[in-house]
Amino acid sequence: MKNYDPAQICVVADSKLLSLLPETEYPVLGIDIREADKSLETVARIWDFLFEHDITRSGLLICIGGGALTDMGGFAAATYKRGIDYINIPTTLLAMIDASVGGKTGVNYNGLKNSIGAFYPPVGTLLCPDWLKTLPSEQLLSGFAEMLKTGLLSGSALFTRLLQYDLAAMDTDALMPLVTDCIRVKRRIVEADPQEKGQRKALNLGHTVGHALEEVSITSGGPALPHGYAVLYGLITELYLSAVKFGCPREPLQQLTDLMIHYYGRIQCKCSDRDRLLELMRQDKKNEHATDINCTLLGDVGQPLVNQLISPDEMNEALDYLFSL
Amino acid sequence: MKNYDPAQICVVADSKLLSLLPETEYPVLGIDIREADKSLETVARIWDFLFEHDITRSGLLICIGGGALTDMGGFAAATYKRGIDYINIPTTLLAMIDASVGGKTGVNYNGLKNSIGAFYPPVGTLLCPDWLKTLPSEQLLSGFAEMLKTGLLSGSALFTRLLQYDLAAMDTDALMPLVTDCIRVKRRIVEADPQEKGQRKALNLGHTVGHALEEVSITSGGPALPHGYAVLYGLITELYLSAVKFGCPREPLQQLTDLMIHYYGRIQCKCSDRDRLLELMRQDKKNEHATDINCTLLGDVGQPLVNQLISPDEMNEALDYLFSL
Repeated sequence: MKNYDPAQICVVADSKLLSLLPETEYPVLGIDIREADKSLETVARIWDFLFEHDITRSGLLICIGGGALTDMGGFAAATYKRGIDYINIPTTLLAMIDASVGGKTGVNYNGLKNSIGAFYPPVGTLLCPDWLKTLPSEQLLSGFAEMLKTGLLSGSALFTRLLQYDLAAMDTDALMPLVTDCIRVKRRIVEADPQEKGQRKALNLGHTVGHALEEVSITSGGPALPHGYAVLYGLITELYLSAVKFGCPREPLQQLTDLMIHYYGRIQCKCSDRDRLLELMRQDKKNEHATDINCTLLGDVGQPLVNQLISPDEMNEALDYLFSL
Repeated sequence: MKNYDPAQICVVADSKLLSLLPETEYPVLGIDIREADKSLETVARIWDFLFEHDITRSGLLICIGGGALTDMGGFAAATYKRGIDYINIPTTLLAMIDASVGGKTGVNYNGLKNSIGAFYPPVGTLLCPDWLKTLPSEQLLSGFAEMLKTGLLSGSALFTRLLQYDLAAMDTDALMPLVTDCIRVKRRIVEADPQEKGQRKALNLGHTVGHALEEVSITSGGPALPHGYAVLYGLITELYLSAVKFGCPREPLQQLTDLMIHYYGRIQCKCSDRDRLLELMRQDKKNEHATDINCTLLGDVGQPLVNQLISPDEMNEALDYLFSL
């Protein structure tokens, strides 16, 4: 990594982590993060902070926090003076797995998650395992669901190791080698297709349904579904579709269903949310079709099938399966 | 260029050009352009328009207008769903020369020109010479100043041909071969350094001073200085610095001064604007230094010197020259 003028370095961090940070000479902007805050207005606060400190194009922004923080920090860096360097220090398991690799940045807009953003990778990502010890189990479970997705894409070796991990004990030291392997799998997929023109869409497994569930939970005013929980419900729905449409074995579907029942809990959905769910899936930014829903499905563990078109009727049947569990 | 689904194509155009466009099956968003409108709010209108028409990541945005329109359309395309394709159809001489090549997109923010944006090139640019016949002479003169800058960077052959062009007659047919040659020069510079890490800064000749003059004219509430006029005044100021600091011959300085007096008119500046001018130059996004001003200067015609540091005193002396003409 190149050397930066110390006067040209700024930090943006989740404000609830400020007391955990070491003392620093760099200016620090604390951001109070809730998903509802992942907005252009918050990005503008980061821009204003960079302007205040006279950060030039050769400056550096260090982003410390979960995925929402690094997504916004990355987007601010991507667009401030047409782009400055940034480093991510992910502090949640989800951010380590999902947001720290791949260069996706962005904000929610118009009621749609990450609908405004850029592909703009950080110049570096620092993984500090100690952050994992600060997390409540809900957040570890949320990140673990993304790891399960990565395992499903990678193949039975990694997926089996993940299933063997003891979610009841949740030993973070035993988790780190699995984290590293998941990041390696993601990096391989992203580097082969940085702009998500084709195979990178494999990473979307579980997310077409998951994003829609997450958004409905947010807009319905109740507590927001944690991203990884939504992804797990999405994986179950999409594994069901994979079994019905492509003969994917039902074993991984059953294994995830068991994990869900034991650790994550079932999901509730009001009938009145159904139309909104389908509408959101149609509008997903990865969807290139106006009527059907574009999903990544599996032929088998380790065999992603991108750009599969699902009719609203098929999706409704799969959602029936999820909601009946 | 790839084929686009006709249902996935949208047009954004300067609203005063709508009556000149051929009938089209594509949805058209008209934008009333004034420099003050080159804002994030206007970009959001383009995003909203794309959402309304269910444009997916494989969609296409066609931008028809001057540089302000194509800068905003390009930035909207760069950030909508993390980036969709766009095509520029520049309708002013300035946009043909300056905005159509190089992939710079952006908006004004925080009182600073183009301070938020992205490097995101269009998939294509369509040059239609007939647009030039629709332009008032002020706009042709404005674009011609950018051509003079390109000539100064390229070498005496192109610069001499530009000086021989008859600005009084302003024959647009005779202008087109010069336009094409200027675009070729710019493309060569941009392709060697797309992210503006080094040599591309040569294109900034005249712009450190020019941008500051333009902004002061806007914020002072009077009529905005046309961009190219500001660039010509900037070129004169920076050629003066080039002569004083690097022994650049005074002939091109005199030639531009003569053109200015005959065709563009002198520039007025209130003493109270001086501090603001220097402050703006320091904050220019290409400036990487906090106290001095970073400029591109010339050792001679065809010999750009990027990243030259100018002290506030030196800049004041050069501005004295400009304002005394």
